[in-house]
Amino acid sequence: MYENEIRTWLKDSRTKAVQLLQKLVQEPSRRGQEGSAQAIVVEKCRQLGLEIDLWEIGDEQLRNHPHFYCDRKDFKGNPNLVAIKRGTGSGKSIILNGHIDVVPEGDHSAWQDEPYSGRLMDGKVFGRGTTDMKGGNVSLLLAIEAIVESGIQLKGDVIFQSVIEEESGGAGTLAAVMRGYKADGAIIPEPTNMKLFPLQQGSMWFRLIVTGKSAHGGTRYEGVSAIDKAVVVMKEIKQLEQVRNEPLRHSLYKNVPIPVPINIGSLTSGNWPSSVPDTAVLEGRFGIAPTETMEEAQMSLIQLIEAMNERDEWFKEKPIILEWFGARWLPGSLETNHPLMKTIGTYYEKVRGKEPVVEASPWATDGGYLSTVGSTPVVVFGPGETKLAHDANEYIEVDKMMQAAEIIALTIIDWCEAEQN
Amino acid sequence: MYENEIRTWLKDSRTKAVQLLQKLVQEPSRRGQEGSAQAIVVEKCRQLGLEIDLWEIGDEQLRNHPHFYCDRKDFKGNPNLVAIKRGTGSGKSIILNGHIDVVPEGDHSAWQDEPYSGRLMDGKVFGRGTTDMKGGNVSLLLAIEAIVESGIQLKGDVIFQSVIEEESGGAGTLAAVMRGYKADGAIIPEPTNMKLFPLQQGSMWFRLIVTGKSAHGGTRYEGVSAIDKAVVVMKEIKQLEQVRNEPLRHSLYKNVPIPVPINIGSLTSGNWPSSVPDTAVLEGRFGIAPTETMEEAQMSLIQLIEAMNERDEWFKEKPIILEWFGARWLPGSLETNHPLMKTIGTYYEKVRGKEPVVEASPWATDGGYLSTVGSTPVVVFGPGETKLAHDANEYIEVDKMMQAAEIIALTIIDWCEAEQN
Repeated sequence: MYENEIRTWLKDSRTKAVQLLQKLVQEPSRRGQEGSAQAIVVEKCRQLGLEIDLWEIGDEQLRNHPHFYCDRKDFKGNPNLVAIKRGTGSGKSIILNGHIDVVPEGDHSAWQDEPYSGRLMDGKVFGRGTTDMKGGNVSLLLAIEAIVESGIQLKGDVIFQSVIEEESGGAGTLAAVMRGYKADGAIIPEPTNMKLFPLQQGSMWFRLIVTGKSAHGGTRYEGVSAIDKAVVVMKEIKQLEQVRNEPLRHSLYKNVPIPVPINIGSLTSGNWPSSVPDTAVLEGRFGIAPTETMEEAQMSLIQLIEAMNERDEWFKEKPIILEWFGARWLPGSLETNHPLMKTIGTYYEKVRGKEPVVEASPWATDGGYLSTVGSTPVVVFGPGETKLAHDANEYIEVDKMMQAAEIIALTIIDWCEAEQN
Repeated sequence: MYENEIRTWLKDSRTKAVQLLQKLVQEPSRRGQEGSAQAIVVEKCRQLGLEIDLWEIGDEQLRNHPHFYCDRKDFKGNPNLVAIKRGTGSGKSIILNGHIDVVPEGDHSAWQDEPYSGRLMDGKVFGRGTTDMKGGNVSLLLAIEAIVESGIQLKGDVIFQSVIEEESGGAGTLAAVMRGYKADGAIIPEPTNMKLFPLQQGSMWFRLIVTGKSAHGGTRYEGVSAIDKAVVVMKEIKQLEQVRNEPLRHSLYKNVPIPVPINIGSLTSGNWPSSVPDTAVLEGRFGIAPTETMEEAQMSLIQLIEAMNERDEWFKEKPIILEWFGARWLPGSLETNHPLMKTIGTYYEKVRGKEPVVEASPWATDGGYLSTVGSTPVVVFGPGETKLAHDANEYIEVDKMMQAAEIIALTIIDWCEAEQN
C-alpha cells in the first residue's frame, strides 16, 4: 500500500530534490559555519508542517556528560534542529538522523570544479558534502515530504534530526539524545553506498608528539630528526593496525580491506629548512571495532607507545607522548535480524529488486550515541559513495538519492504504521 | 711585537667582553628583528672611533643581482653595518664579517633555560646566537678594541661588518659587497670550534610538494596518504645524499660524517585527523660541495625527482613538484697555502701552542659572496661550537672567544701592518 503514490511523487520531484541538494551544498557548512545550511533545512521543515525544535547546544549538562568529547568552545549561531511529524499515537517511533556539518574541502587543486559548486553532471551532484551527507539528508526530507504530500497519517512519531558536530565527535546528536529524543528505531543515511550497516566502527582522535634534537642542517648528523623518528613511529602503527584487524577478517567485515584502520591525518614538523626538526606532531584517527570498548582500543595504542619508549634507545631518553584529544565516536551494533533491519530489507528488495548487502561500517557515526546513550536501535543506510567521503570531487548519484528516499519512506510507513483513511 | 699588549688587554677585558655578549644575546635578533642587537654593535663601533656606514639594504640594484636569493620584503628598521678603522695607507686591508641575525630558538621545552638568557655558567655563555655567531662577533670587536686601546696604528684598512640575513641567504653581505666593500682578505668567525675552514659548503633551500589522494580515515585504503608518499621521497633523498657524498670522503672532509648533507627541515601534511592527507610539503637545505657549481648540485636533485616521477606509478600520475626557494649560499674556497691561511695559522700556534686543524665547513657562510662576488679571499675561523649552531641550549666557551680575539688581533696587526711608532 502507498507504494505507487510514494514512487510517483518521488519521480515527479526529482528536479526539486536536486535543487534542494544544490542549495545545501552551496553553503559550506564546515565546523563553526553550519548556520546558513541549517537555515535551509529549517525552512524546508517549516514548509512540511513539522514541529520545530531549534536550539544552540553546549549547556553545562552536555559539557559534563561523560561521553562529551568536544573541544569546540562556541556553538553560537549554529543551532541543532529536531523537526517532528507527530503521530496519532500507539505506533512505533523513528528517528531520521543526518548531520549538516562537512569536513574541510582540502587542497582546491585536487578538485576539478569549485568544491562547493553543487554542479549537476551525468546524473551526479558534485561538491563537498554531497555524499557525506547532505544527499542522505535530502533522502530523509524527500521521504517525509512524500508521506506528507501523499496525505498519509502515521501512528508513530517521525523525528527528523539535522545535527551539527558529527564530523568532530557527535556532540550534536548527544545533545539531541540528552534533550530527550529517543525512539524505537533510527535510520542514519551516511554514505553506505546503499548497503545496510547494523554495526558501526567507533573511533577516537589521538596525537603523538615525537621529540628529536635540533642541529644545523649542515651538520645534521649532530641532531636527531623528529621527522625520521616519526617515520619509525608510523611504521610501528601500521603493524599495530595489522594485528588489530587480523581477528576482524570475518563475517560483516569480509569485504573491507582494513576493518578498523588507524589513520595518520596530519604530520607537522620543523620550521626552518636549514635546521634539523626537533619536534613532530602526528594526529590521527583510531578505529574501534564494534566488538571492543573504547578503553580496550586505547590500551592497544598505549601499550605500543610504552613498548617503544622502553625498547628504543632514543625514545627511552625522549619518550613519545600520546594524547587523546577532540573527537570520539562510540561504536554501535544491532543484531542483523532486528525488526528494523528486516523492515528496511523488505523495502530495499521491493525498490531495488535484490537483497541488500549487509556490512559493518568503516567509520563511526552518530549511531553510537543514539544506541549507546539513547537506547535507540540504529541502522545506517544511505545513498552516498563510501569511498568519496572526505575526498576531493565528492559526488552523489541522484538515482541512488531518490531510491534511498523511496526505501526510507516505505520503511517509515510500515514502521510507524499508517492510519487507515 | 704587540703580543704582550694584546694579551694583557684581553685578559683584563674578559668581564666586559662577557657583558657585551650577554647584551647582544638578550636581544633576540631573529629575522626581521635585527635592529636592537645591531644598535648595540653600532654604539660599540662609535665608542671605538670607527667610521660608521649604517644603511637599510634592499634597493633595486641589490634585488636585481643574479645572486640575490632573498624572499624578504622589508628591511626597514634593521640596517646593515660596516664600520672601518681606516689605515694610514699602503697596507693590506681586511674584512671582519659577522652576522647579527639568529635562527629561531625552536621548541622552548628543549631549552634548560630561557633561550635568550645570556646566562654565564661554568665559563660558558648560554643562549640562542652565542655560538652562531654573536660570540664570534664579540671576538672581532675585542680584536679591534685591543688594537685601538694598545695604540696601534695600522697601514691597511680594517673593515668590520655586522650584517643581517646570513641565516636566510646572505643578502646583507651581498649588499655590502655591492656597496663596494672588498679587501685583500677576510675572516668570518662562524662557529668552526677554532678550526680553520678555507673551503665552505654552499647550500640552497628546496621545497617538494607531494600529492596523495584524500579519503575518509575509516576507509583510508581508498586514499593515498601524502605522508606515506613523502616517506618514500625522503628515503630516496637519503640515498642521493650518500651518492653525492661518496666522492668527498677525502682530504679536508675526512673528519666530517656527511660532508654536504641534504637536510629535511620541515614536513607539513594534512589538516584533519579523520582524513587521509592529500598534500605533503617538505622543505630542506641542499648542501653544495666547494668543488661543484650551484647548477650541478641542483641537477642531481632535479634528476632524482624526474626519475621518481617516471618510475613510480603514483608519481607518474601525480608528479612530485620541486621548487628552489628563498635562501641560497654560494660555496667558497681558498687554497690552503694562501698567505691569509698562513698568517692566521702562525698566530694560532703562538696563542694555542699547537697547529690549527684545517677542514672544510659543514655549512655555507657569507664567505661565498665575499669571495665569489667580492673577489676577497676568505678564511672562516671562529670560537663557537659547530654542533651547537641552531640547537637548543646553544652556548659558547668564553676562553675560546677570548683566544679567537687574540689570534684575530695579531693576524690583523700582521696582515694590515703596524706603523712603527
